[in-house]
Amino acid sequence: MSEYSAPLDDIRFVLENVVDLAGLSKFPAYEHIDADTVFGVLEENARFMEQLVAPLNRSGDIQHSRWDAGTVTTPDGFREAYQQYVSAGWGGVPFPADYGGGGFPWIVGVVMQEIMQEANLAFSMCPLLTQGAIDMLLHHSDEGQKEKYLPKMVTGEWTGTMNLTEPQAGSDVGAVATKAVPSADGDGSWRITGQKIFISFGEHDMADNIIHLVLARVPDAPPGTKGISCFIVPKVLVDDDGNLGERNSLQCVSIEEKMGINASPTCVMAYDDAVGYLIGEPNAGMRYMFTMMNSARLSVGLQGLALGERAYQKAVAYAHERRQGRAPGAPAGTQSPIVELPDVRRMLLTMRALNEASRCIAFLNAECFDLALHHPDEAVRQQRSELADLLTPITKGWGTDMGVEVTSLALQVFGGMGYIEETGVAQHYRDARIAPIYEGTNGIQAMDLVGRKLPMRAGGVIMDFLGSISATADEVAAAGSDELAPIGARLADGHRVLKEATEWLMTNGLADPVNVLAGATPFLRMAGTVTGGWLLARSALAAQRRLDAGASGDDAELLRQKIVTARFYCDQLLPQADGFLAAVTAGPTDLTAAVF
Amino acid sequence: MSEYSAPLDDIRFVLENVVDLAGLSKFPAYEHIDADTVFGVLEENARFMEQLVAPLNRSGDIQHSRWDAGTVTTPDGFREAYQQYVSAGWGGVPFPADYGGGGFPWIVGVVMQEIMQEANLAFSMCPLLTQGAIDMLLHHSDEGQKEKYLPKMVTGEWTGTMNLTEPQAGSDVGAVATKAVPSADGDGSWRITGQKIFISFGEHDMADNIIHLVLARVPDAPPGTKGISCFIVPKVLVDDDGNLGERNSLQCVSIEEKMGINASPTCVMAYDDAVGYLIGEPNAGMRYMFTMMNSARLSVGLQGLALGERAYQKAVAYAHERRQGRAPGAPAGTQSPIVELPDVRRMLLTMRALNEASRCIAFLNAECFDLALHHPDEAVRQQRSELADLLTPITKGWGTDMGVEVTSLALQVFGGMGYIEETGVAQHYRDARIAPIYEGTNGIQAMDLVGRKLPMRAGGVIMDFLGSISATADEVAAAGSDELAPIGARLADGHRVLKEATEWLMTNGLADPVNVLAGATPFLRMAGTVTGGWLLARSALAAQRRLDAGASGDDAELLRQKIVTARFYCDQLLPQADGFLAAVTAGPTDLTAAVF
Repeated sequence: MSEYSAPLDDIRFVLENVVDLAGLSKFPAYEHIDADTVFGVLEENARFMEQLVAPLNRSGDIQHSRWDAGTVTTPDGFREAYQQYVSAGWGGVPFPADYGGGGFPWIVGVVMQEIMQEANLAFSMCPLLTQGAIDMLLHHSDEGQKEKYLPKMVTGEWTGTMNLTEPQAGSDVGAVATKAVPSADGDGSWRITGQKIFISFGEHDMADNIIHLVLARVPDAPPGTKGISCFIVPKVLVDDDGNLGERNSLQCVSIEEKMGINASPTCVMAYDDAVGYLIGEPNAGMRYMFTMMNSARLSVGLQGLALGERAYQKAVAYAHERRQGRAPGAPAGTQSPIVELPDVRRMLLTMRALNEASRCIAFLNAECFDLALHHPDEAVRQQRSELADLLTPITKGWGTDMGVEVTSLALQVFGGMGYIEETGVAQHYRDARIAPIYEGTNGIQAMDLVGRKLPMRAGGVIMDFLGSISATADEVAAAGSDELAPIGARLADGHRVLKEATEWLMTNGLADPVNVLAGATPFLRMAGTVTGGWLLARSALAAQRRLDAGASGDDAELLRQKIVTARFYCDQLLPQADGFLAAVTAGPTDLTAAVF
Repeated sequence: MSEYSAPLDDIRFVLENVVDLAGLSKFPAYEHIDADTVFGVLEENARFMEQLVAPLNRSGDIQHSRWDAGTVTTPDGFREAYQQYVSAGWGGVPFPADYGGGGFPWIVGVVMQEIMQEANLAFSMCPLLTQGAIDMLLHHSDEGQKEKYLPKMVTGEWTGTMNLTEPQAGSDVGAVATKAVPSADGDGSWRITGQKIFISFGEHDMADNIIHLVLARVPDAPPGTKGISCFIVPKVLVDDDGNLGERNSLQCVSIEEKMGINASPTCVMAYDDAVGYLIGEPNAGMRYMFTMMNSARLSVGLQGLALGERAYQKAVAYAHERRQGRAPGAPAGTQSPIVELPDVRRMLLTMRALNEASRCIAFLNAECFDLALHHPDEAVRQQRSELADLLTPITKGWGTDMGVEVTSLALQVFGGMGYIEETGVAQHYRDARIAPIYEGTNGIQAMDLVGRKLPMRAGGVIMDFLGSISATADEVAAAGSDELAPIGARLADGHRVLKEATEWLMTNGLADPVNVLAGATPFLRMAGTVTGGWLLARSALAAQRRLDAGASGDDAELLRQKIVTARFYCDQLLPQADGFLAAVTAGPTDLTAAVF
């Protein structure tokens, strides 16, 4: 069975046809970056991940990270691969040159996240958390803090963590109880005491230092989310010249035994009067967290795609190799490769269609981040910022639900062999199941979508979004192609039902917010399904244009397959959106009447 | 968190209101059995499973069955629990008194299977396979074989296995290559040589003997399924007086490392000139297998329900205990039990509705087995036999898909704690994922439904079935109750869409069978969704009648909850059936055009 191969052709198609990578390089911030440079970097990055990181995925799952008396040993090969990752400078690509980064657009970092997560999700958690911590420091820490921590974090020599969760404070972050008091030393530092759980790579052996970002309460802080402050709490204290000094008084007291991502240590961290440094203002921690939340949620949404893509590749390889049964039209007495069986083809094409829809949504979301920051036109910046806000819960919630679905289909293609751990597909299914839970459960994403995002600009943002979908449906219809016609018709149906659901929620949510909470999850599913159809319809339009313009050879085959995938999605998967309307608009009566 | 409690009230409701348990005892075969006796047995069985078998579920998952030099040691406690199971005589309840059984209807055995599978799926595999082997011997072996093997198998002192699969022969059973040659001893026995895989409890330490039923080819057998014969191959040879003699030349050469059901040893079995005894005629093995296939598939369909029920109980308990966030209307500054949050209530009610729909389908299917054998009216026997054939792929395919869905929802209710193995809900999710694969993958079930079951009686069977659904929709409408009205309307919609899909398949399948194969999986999903709605509508009607007749107290509360569950299902889940119509009727164009 072939190992992982980064889907660079598919990635490039989306970067060129669904988003406008070349357009980004026209902005002052990115004028030193052209598309060829980007693709050159991505190809090199893909080779690195394919050759050095992907082969550690299964062995890491078997070996797990192991805890012993406060130290955590990662699986064989992780430390060395990570050091090569640091040497190659991969972690810094999308960060500012001021702190040693490559100054590339965020979307390029997102593509690299996809590839790294495909190669090895558990491994990727460490750089991913570090990038989140860098993002926080870049936006909210003071210049001294930036100079002290960022350069080593951008290279990856030091890694970062996010310490939010406590036993009583999961989805309910406002319940954080960890305490911070001003240090008696009078040097402006703080002392942090409390226990945090679910801290990915809270302790490990891959880097010289770990910079923990810890949410805690200062004395007399107001209750709830308004009283949370954010602190830098290094594992090893750093002096003013940047040298490592004493070990801080914090430790990893245990790690969890999980269903998946076993190579990623999920730590219980104990802070016992540990030295910490306040980021920004006291009690502003939640606000700071929100600024990086979209980015973190996008990254987790990508995990659904990443495991789906990895599992898809495995399923395709197996379907070519495994002979069983007889395909329609095959000679009697022979066994056909199962890739020829209609039901197996349905599973493979469903996987591909869902993956491609997820990739389109995630990349559009990432482009919005870049445009919201760097587009020269203020109105476009604002509009893209709004679209990013709207898309993020869809990217995360729908993308991770589909990751579970797609890895499950891959397992099913393997049949009995899929349930045996040695084929490795079971690992993708187990790994994928965390993504709908962390970084805000998908229930939280659904409530964010209906409770915070639909009301943006009094419904103007979602109405603009619906308008874009409708415009694409019209454009497909106007193209007058028999090949594309079903896409346009189904997308128009999808638009209609999403609009109806949206209007119901906006009307009835004013009357009683419970109406909105009750219908949130089916609405998210519907919105993701329709958004995927919209972007695959745009893919098909672009592919048809390029075919009409004379594309040939491998390129033409790729474009024709984009149309097949889009048509399958729109014709067979998109209509499921309709089936969720009843649940969105049912209201809470039965939920309230049920006794559990 | 409370341990497992058998859902006897829910079971009794279905036995009394969806099927007619009391009616069965009017037939000569069951006249010694009344409903009170049945419920007494079930209560005692439930206590046994709750107290002795359920507590071994998690420890068995942790410890696994272990292989060493051909022997298999089951987890601590399994051997003792199994011996108590044998002493209590649970395995024989639904078998004929002639061989030491209890002579109860098959549906009573099915209810006991549900309870045992809820208690401990891995443990249950051993008695389940034994029951399958008994079923085969009862139907097809000769009197001498029956007398030799059945009494000890009915008590459970000896266990049974089914040896079908080989590396090249999984779904494609016709590819079996294991050979059988007449013994040189000239005693009428055969010698069996070959390797079998995926043999559940092929070796273990819980019983004195294991009676393997092995598919093999005799010399000059025709190719494919028409050349398969079925042999009794005991682990330890049995002399004419029933005494155990020499060890037969077969062994377990390894067991698989799986994603779940870890306490159930999945064995690779090597037969090396092993002594075997032909069942019935040579080359008739597949036909014999078919007679017990419905029963085995029903049992696996129940596994989806069983794990869904166990996971539901766990999720409800956790949702009452876990406080997080604030429910609508709760005082500021408090944390509510998450059972009060609308999105959590949606998950719990979805779980309950899917479980109850699965139970109704499975029990109706089981009742059909009994009626097909024992109803005094030949026409009814025929009609129930046809309905059993139609329902079986739905019970298995839809029931096991929903088992995965429901255990996934339970995991989601637990949030991050669900992904940690110690809470135990992850095990249910891992265990549940085998059921859509074994005993005929769900793709095979879908092809069976559209390719073999829809054409029965030239479509007459499915049309009768659709007529029953339509009649229930009319009956609900005629009831004139506001409470029930949405159920009737949605069921009428579901009937219409299932009818349309059926007619499309029957019309277009004649033109090209690939049309049917391409739409099989979405059709199965649709058929399951509508069938569940039909039977929950019947539940609601029955509940309403009993309420109208003056039910009170706990009984009334149960009946009111049946109506809530049915209404939620019909109003919010049943409409999803509509979303699959497009996929059923799309034909194979895109599947064929896709290049993988």
